[in-house]
Amino acid sequence: MIYRTHTCGELQGTDEGQVVQLCGWVKSWRDHGGLLFIDLRDRYGVTQIVFSPEYNAALYRMALTLRNEFVVSVKGKVGLRPQGMQNKDMLTGEIEIQAERLDILNKSKTPPFEILDEIDVHEELKLKYRYLDLRRPTNKDNLLLRSDLYKVVRDALHDQHFVEIETPYLMRSTPEGARDFLVPSRNYKGQFYALPQSPQTYKQILMVAGFDRYFQIVKCFRDEDLRKDRQPEFTQIDIEMSFVDEQDVMAVAENLMRSIYANLRGQKLADPFPRLSYDEAMRNYGSDKPDLRFDLRIQHLTNIFSNTAFNAFAEVINNKGIIAGLHLNAGDKFSRKQLDHLTEHVRKLGAKGLIWFRYKNGQLEGPVVKFLSENEINKIIEYTGAVDGEIILLVAGEDEKTLMVLGGLRLYLADFLGLADKQPDSILWITDFPMLEFSEEENRYMARHHPFTCPRPEDIGRLDTEPEHVKARAYDLVLNGNEIAGGSIRIHQAELQRNVFRMLGISDEEAENKFGFLMTALEYGAPPHGGIAFGFDRLAMILAGADSIRDVIAFPKTASALSLMDGAPSRISEAQLSDLGLSIKKD
Amino acid sequence: MIYRTHTCGELQGTDEGQVVQLCGWVKSWRDHGGLLFIDLRDRYGVTQIVFSPEYNAALYRMALTLRNEFVVSVKGKVGLRPQGMQNKDMLTGEIEIQAERLDILNKSKTPPFEILDEIDVHEELKLKYRYLDLRRPTNKDNLLLRSDLYKVVRDALHDQHFVEIETPYLMRSTPEGARDFLVPSRNYKGQFYALPQSPQTYKQILMVAGFDRYFQIVKCFRDEDLRKDRQPEFTQIDIEMSFVDEQDVMAVAENLMRSIYANLRGQKLADPFPRLSYDEAMRNYGSDKPDLRFDLRIQHLTNIFSNTAFNAFAEVINNKGIIAGLHLNAGDKFSRKQLDHLTEHVRKLGAKGLIWFRYKNGQLEGPVVKFLSENEINKIIEYTGAVDGEIILLVAGEDEKTLMVLGGLRLYLADFLGLADKQPDSILWITDFPMLEFSEEENRYMARHHPFTCPRPEDIGRLDTEPEHVKARAYDLVLNGNEIAGGSIRIHQAELQRNVFRMLGISDEEAENKFGFLMTALEYGAPPHGGIAFGFDRLAMILAGADSIRDVIAFPKTASALSLMDGAPSRISEAQLSDLGLSIKKD
Repeated sequence: MIYRTHTCGELQGTDEGQVVQLCGWVKSWRDHGGLLFIDLRDRYGVTQIVFSPEYNAALYRMALTLRNEFVVSVKGKVGLRPQGMQNKDMLTGEIEIQAERLDILNKSKTPPFEILDEIDVHEELKLKYRYLDLRRPTNKDNLLLRSDLYKVVRDALHDQHFVEIETPYLMRSTPEGARDFLVPSRNYKGQFYALPQSPQTYKQILMVAGFDRYFQIVKCFRDEDLRKDRQPEFTQIDIEMSFVDEQDVMAVAENLMRSIYANLRGQKLADPFPRLSYDEAMRNYGSDKPDLRFDLRIQHLTNIFSNTAFNAFAEVINNKGIIAGLHLNAGDKFSRKQLDHLTEHVRKLGAKGLIWFRYKNGQLEGPVVKFLSENEINKIIEYTGAVDGEIILLVAGEDEKTLMVLGGLRLYLADFLGLADKQPDSILWITDFPMLEFSEEENRYMARHHPFTCPRPEDIGRLDTEPEHVKARAYDLVLNGNEIAGGSIRIHQAELQRNVFRMLGISDEEAENKFGFLMTALEYGAPPHGGIAFGFDRLAMILAGADSIRDVIAFPKTASALSLMDGAPSRISEAQLSDLGLSIKKD
Repeated sequence: MIYRTHTCGELQGTDEGQVVQLCGWVKSWRDHGGLLFIDLRDRYGVTQIVFSPEYNAALYRMALTLRNEFVVSVKGKVGLRPQGMQNKDMLTGEIEIQAERLDILNKSKTPPFEILDEIDVHEELKLKYRYLDLRRPTNKDNLLLRSDLYKVVRDALHDQHFVEIETPYLMRSTPEGARDFLVPSRNYKGQFYALPQSPQTYKQILMVAGFDRYFQIVKCFRDEDLRKDRQPEFTQIDIEMSFVDEQDVMAVAENLMRSIYANLRGQKLADPFPRLSYDEAMRNYGSDKPDLRFDLRIQHLTNIFSNTAFNAFAEVINNKGIIAGLHLNAGDKFSRKQLDHLTEHVRKLGAKGLIWFRYKNGQLEGPVVKFLSENEINKIIEYTGAVDGEIILLVAGEDEKTLMVLGGLRLYLADFLGLADKQPDSILWITDFPMLEFSEEENRYMARHHPFTCPRPEDIGRLDTEPEHVKARAYDLVLNGNEIAGGSIRIHQAELQRNVFRMLGISDEEAENKFGFLMTALEYGAPPHGGIAFGFDRLAMILAGADSIRDVIAFPKTASALSLMDGAPSRISEAQLSDLGLSIKKD
């Protein structure tokens, strides 16, 4: 049987008179002046079909049985729509098909929600009937964009002589940081494989094997307590290169992003991308992934108050804290009530409070002005440029925390004021990360990136003495305030790797048990190497203008890692459990 | 630091005089007439480096410390090799680099085997040191070919408007046929995800969602008792299409194969590919995946012996068996001893014995000639074309088993005689498979392809009455005797799917429990659809001319699913086990 000669997205006025056959889903139907109009939808578009009782009465009666989402094949002649009935907004809006034959290929129950973007559907219902949700135009377009993104990424990397290599999904469990998803072995009862949190060790080993430039678009798995918009399985563009330093890897990543923007957006990105050190980013934007679609930079005012009589500030300065804030010319947009909201918000972020000033009619006003000296008041005015309508929002407290609070406040204000709206995308590198962060939970230093990250050569001597001041040869790529990629130059010498493990409180025995195979590989001619990994889902989300990575994943899971459509996870049979030599503990 | 200006695979005579810098591994070194020659290897090739004590004595002494597989960066001037020392077989064979600077980037222990194709290394050692094994030229080239194959496949499918969509790896366990690999859930203790045996249900649901043409190159997992050259995780090119019949899917697959052969082999394949029904393939070649690089077709001689006096044959015919065989003009290649070997071989394949004849000097000879009538002898001679030197090998017995034995014998003979050597690749379709096969083990009919395969419309009425005669709308693609792809038109109507499940002995309750989500999807406007899946590893293996899929997988596992390099599977910590609410059963 021939199902169709054309898709629903291609027939135009110039096709008038052709006899065609289309397949698709009944998007809508309306009986109108004795004629039945069907909008037929497929992946490619929508075409209007007309059933006329005068033209073919039996066919018309058959068509009257059609309901939304029925699947049909329709044969008929392309005709121009009557004057005034044309739809200029769609390619097929000039024409309609006069039906001559109709095959109902499948019926449909009434869907639990209409297949329209505008319908607000409960998340759980959408996920359960994901195949219906995916018929909605925006969701469909998101996945088509994602498909194009795969293509552009792979083409760009192939053009740069990267070799695509698949690494195993069933690997050794080497948890360090996040929890592994585990897979029990049937052949070796009581033993387990792990699903990769990333192909990090394998890609390093591919460099030892001499592949020079590797990439893969690959699923990764982390069994974490899910935060908002995390998925237990996610997709990564994984890249590794030999005989390179930071600049080489960053150049490849920039070329990749330029290809993506050129192909999918028709836009040029800056060349090279701006770069900020971690310290600069924290000091100016209170974030290691600042959104620079708007400036709104943190102002440091501590020095103004070094001899202040205002107790709250004096105390902070005595405790080596800072006084810093944001100012913006939007004074009239903040009522007292809104300022109270802001205060509440910074408290949630961890600050003790928010101090605000407004500069209006040549006067600085605000609840604490009365506690400040004239000199202090003048300095504040000077800072803001003495522009009428300025509002100044200050936070005082411990250095790092205050910066992070202001980073959060900065995003809140930008959202409230729409500062990022219609701004060009902002992409930049953050470099010179601290190598370590102290984990209160584990009471030890943890690798900020991962334990294979190379310290800066000039810092190697400080590994034992001042670990907190060691910077890593690591870099993150930030797009509109989202970390979309992160990477580093790796340790390629076994001895340094051993030292770093020790510094991380990983004993030689544990290191050997978990990473012995990598350490051994480093002893057989490992080249200097480094790489980067892009979060594919997040990148697709930003390019699609979506709000959640769930919107660009075909079959996402809920925040508690449930698959509502197929009902996974689920109980398994006793036989399956017994095959694996496992039993389920009773509570 | 700049590591290199060129790779080891590009400098030629025309580059003479350039100062260049290369990186790579010391492939070999030889002290020769006071000069030290190093062959430096990277992914791209090998370049000869010369260290001369007269030119730079300190550098020469440093170079003397180099050993095989050390990683170095060398700077120097490109010079022409002396006359007679040039190697025309390699691009870089005209030149050498006069070293001016040497950086030892990393040392290497002495590898457990030399990095040469010719070295025969024990499989376990190769897998343990896979990063060294992968440095060997053939292995490296295999993975580069595999990388090109990904690219060609994806380009060809994108060009045909397929959408690339990723399906979940953590899905519901729905074992039917092979065993699932399972992943315990931490959030829902006692419940499990399964790794996909294939994305079959998801790709069908993507058709219900309206994506029309889907593809993915995807890992699949089967926890089977591993047969030779199977891997617990393997890669599949997964394709599904809507509004199609068999011809449409086969055309897409043929276009794909033509792209692959055009791009990677510079060869044209037949258009369209030849097709054989399952019944024809079995009858003529004793196999559902016949290697047609050579003909060697099964001859059916049962009719000749319908009134035979030869007891062994008469008995077989009485039991409705067949007498069939192969004949080939290679009589002088088979000594009595070799014929004994053949007999032994067919016995292993399950036959009672092998009967041979030789036609030589106008005479039919062989151990059972004396039992045959003149008419029977003449008929045998007639069958073979009465060519001197013909040998005839007959097997008698039950129909299906005899054909399979002859299929096995056919391959054995082809291997022995090198019949496939230097023949053009043979690609063909096998169609009209039986839908079911009876499983002695499960004492029920099992789906030969999978339970979603559509029966031929004309056979639907026989589902209940003669299930063994129902043919499926299924097709396999066979390349050089390997099944490289298999697919089918799927059931797109819930009611027929329910009937097929019942016929497979799957109760409504079990069907609902395992496949309820698919059945529900079929009720909301499922289009007619079908697809195909290619075994990517096997395809890469054939294109690489390799003997095993392990040769085209970066990090393969052993036959018992061990990863010898990283030592997976392994014991996990008590904390990990306890997180999952599992305990390991004692024997």
